[in-house]
Amino acid sequence: MIFDCNNVFDFQVGTHGISANRIREGEGFLSEIKKRVFSKINEDYYPLKLPFEIEKETDRVIEISAAIQKDFENFVVVGMGGSSLGNQMLHFAINGPYYNENLNRTTPRMYFLDNVDPESTSSLLNNINIKKTIFNIITKSGTTGETILNLLIISDILKDKGFDYTKHLVFTTDPEKGFLRELSKTISVKTLSISPAVGGRYSALSTVGLLSAAVEGINIKDLIKGAMDEAKFIEEEAVTRVPALLFPFIQHLLYTEKGININALFTYSDYLSYIGNWYNQLLAESIGKRFTQDGKEVFRGITPLALRGTTDQHSVLQLLLEGPFDKLVVFIAPEQYRSDFYIEGNIADDERVNYLKKKKYSRLIKSEYLATKASLKQNGRPNIDIELPIISEYELGKLIYMFEFSVIALGEMLEVNPINQPSVEIGKRYTYAMMGRKGYEKEKGSFRSLLTGKKDFIISDERKE
Amino acid sequence: MIFDCNNVFDFQVGTHGISANRIREGEGFLSEIKKRVFSKINEDYYPLKLPFEIEKETDRVIEISAAIQKDFENFVVVGMGGSSLGNQMLHFAINGPYYNENLNRTTPRMYFLDNVDPESTSSLLNNINIKKTIFNIITKSGTTGETILNLLIISDILKDKGFDYTKHLVFTTDPEKGFLRELSKTISVKTLSISPAVGGRYSALSTVGLLSAAVEGINIKDLIKGAMDEAKFIEEEAVTRVPALLFPFIQHLLYTEKGININALFTYSDYLSYIGNWYNQLLAESIGKRFTQDGKEVFRGITPLALRGTTDQHSVLQLLLEGPFDKLVVFIAPEQYRSDFYIEGNIADDERVNYLKKKKYSRLIKSEYLATKASLKQNGRPNIDIELPIISEYELGKLIYMFEFSVIALGEMLEVNPINQPSVEIGKRYTYAMMGRKGYEKEKGSFRSLLTGKKDFIISDERKE
Repeated sequence: MIFDCNNVFDFQVGTHGISANRIREGEGFLSEIKKRVFSKINEDYYPLKLPFEIEKETDRVIEISAAIQKDFENFVVVGMGGSSLGNQMLHFAINGPYYNENLNRTTPRMYFLDNVDPESTSSLLNNINIKKTIFNIITKSGTTGETILNLLIISDILKDKGFDYTKHLVFTTDPEKGFLRELSKTISVKTLSISPAVGGRYSALSTVGLLSAAVEGINIKDLIKGAMDEAKFIEEEAVTRVPALLFPFIQHLLYTEKGININALFTYSDYLSYIGNWYNQLLAESIGKRFTQDGKEVFRGITPLALRGTTDQHSVLQLLLEGPFDKLVVFIAPEQYRSDFYIEGNIADDERVNYLKKKKYSRLIKSEYLATKASLKQNGRPNIDIELPIISEYELGKLIYMFEFSVIALGEMLEVNPINQPSVEIGKRYTYAMMGRKGYEKEKGSFRSLLTGKKDFIISDERKE
Repeated sequence: MIFDCNNVFDFQVGTHGISANRIREGEGFLSEIKKRVFSKINEDYYPLKLPFEIEKETDRVIEISAAIQKDFENFVVVGMGGSSLGNQMLHFAINGPYYNENLNRTTPRMYFLDNVDPESTSSLLNNINIKKTIFNIITKSGTTGETILNLLIISDILKDKGFDYTKHLVFTTDPEKGFLRELSKTISVKTLSISPAVGGRYSALSTVGLLSAAVEGINIKDLIKGAMDEAKFIEEEAVTRVPALLFPFIQHLLYTEKGININALFTYSDYLSYIGNWYNQLLAESIGKRFTQDGKEVFRGITPLALRGTTDQHSVLQLLLEGPFDKLVVFIAPEQYRSDFYIEGNIADDERVNYLKKKKYSRLIKSEYLATKASLKQNGRPNIDIELPIISEYELGKLIYMFEFSVIALGEMLEVNPINQPSVEIGKRYTYAMMGRKGYEKEKGSFRSLLTGKKDFIISDERKE
């Protein structure tokens, strides 16, 4: 991995950059942060120890996945947020957007049921051969409403069709507690454990992310090896030479001193683009926190923005170049693409197209990546480069670990807890009230009053088709 | 369409909301903005007249699409930015994410080649039956680098396989000028015209968006009818009762007076979620502009953020609830979903799941939508509701037109040109220089100097697998 942060400094981007001295003078601060992170690694920050723990379980995961590959043609990941985003990131990075349509594919098709939209759920369930499908129900708590609802509709359908539904299910949940764990015993369903110390957004490299990955032929041992190597690199290298510390330090300085409240992840690869969706949760949920300091309320948070090159040069780049100085742009690109073409292009001899001919296809995306970076610099916009030698399980493992460590370090720098997500609980209680769940009658009243408003500000266009 | 803006006002969300009097007192301002928009409708703002112009062409588009449906199994949209985003929005909204896998589908599979990533391009081109595939090459200027590169590789492959490649192509480009228009005559390829007055991000309802839509069976007449009805509604209704004027007014007030620089589009529907990607370009490219005012440089822009409910409740909601007061959240949801299930759920009798049983599947997503809205209000976060009675071509046409009008009105309010995108040109020149295109030798020097930096800030982790 190459991490190039030249373009966040004032000597490169001018007044909206930070002084390079801040890094040189930051050694003490970074050492302190590193110490604080490692001091909690057996408790709150257990996810950072996870690769070393999970390594022992990879053989068992591979064994289970081999049985699934033998018996099923379709594998559906049923989970919300962190119980699906990591799986999708691994799926896209290694197998890409057309995996299901690949004629040479020897492993099951992959689907991700990560919502409770009746239109998309019915469209999925009506279009796959249920007889040849296994559903991986993933919920750490064992009670996530959407996931359980999907389990209910799936088991309804399996029963209707007369299949032994327990054979079409595999659970991933808490090792001891929760509805799903209890159910797994009652109805006897194969079940993987996820440690309660691993929060959803840190679970890509746990049993949550690994089973679907192994089923679709991803080398999960290399993935874990990459994460472990990155962990060792962080532990051993000088703090000012560690991307997992430098990156959050830069995010922190730009946020607190330059008012940069948006971090864009600009991936120059379709396969890597889902890293943006995964990082959205990691950054948003970890850092977006309210707390009280010196008697005053503080509202902290950096908004993630996932962009895809070259595509989004044709949509959001104009804003990045001329809009407010409210963004840090982080590029992620492979140095080398795993496939390529050579362009003949004998359809016209014209100077407007000749520059594209007798060249590798990859040359254009590489040139545009550098051109975008140069344009941002020229416009005084801070940006960072992260280059992977090639997209592989090993490099992906390193990158995932680097981001997880960096978000936890950023939490320490910004004095927020990067592990919890207290506010999403309110909405869950209102949902229970709306659904008529017992014990939530009280919420119904306050909820109703929150939904009222003035009629003047509701515009209903009565014209109908 | 129901537009509910109660929750942007201080009487609902407190100090971070705007005073309701602003709307009541805003009538004059809104009338002036409306007048200014309509005064330019024959020139710069021609896209707002487009539905009335394009109506005459729908029969011809349907005729061409019928011939394509007869001869081909796969249809590939080849275009960048606005030459693909509108197509994808229509595709997902009407036909959804599993359209290609639908066993009852009678119209061609749809693909979108909107990048020049060698990995995804080769994965697509290797996995479809080229013999049964037609490629719609879309570029208004006729010279977009990525699109032309894809045309070259596609024609290379078609020729290699010995097919008459002109029969596998359909162009959409300028009626008179540009490389693609000229080529269409030389090699004789069926070609649709796109008016040079319609910028990419306003082209969803032009020939750009309509051909692929018609090919996949979308009712393009209803789509255009919806847009025309929305246009009439805007023209005839009192200005303070028009969402296409109220929405930008709210965006404008929150941006200029409350420092809200992020607008999130939170769609409670998988099918509608691609509206977020389309709106990203519409808002970012239209409003993100630098200009000089009273001798000072002004950098204007609102950053769009596409979110999907309920999924992103499990990723970004924590930030929306507790993070900085830097966001307006706009919900889009259908009142009624086009399909549904009834849940039996006889796998366990347990109070933790019983609340989900003997109910419609759609009740959960609807409850969560209201719960999220209530939570945002309780946390003092401005938000707007847009509800469509149902997802249909007609309602989609209305919504698209409403957003297009609102962005142009917002441009007028913020004194920026919502039609151009001046800054993306710099990067194109650097790209040409990198590709060795004649006439761009000078750019190469300044480009190279932009890419240099200090070695201290480049960290290369030498560990390899």
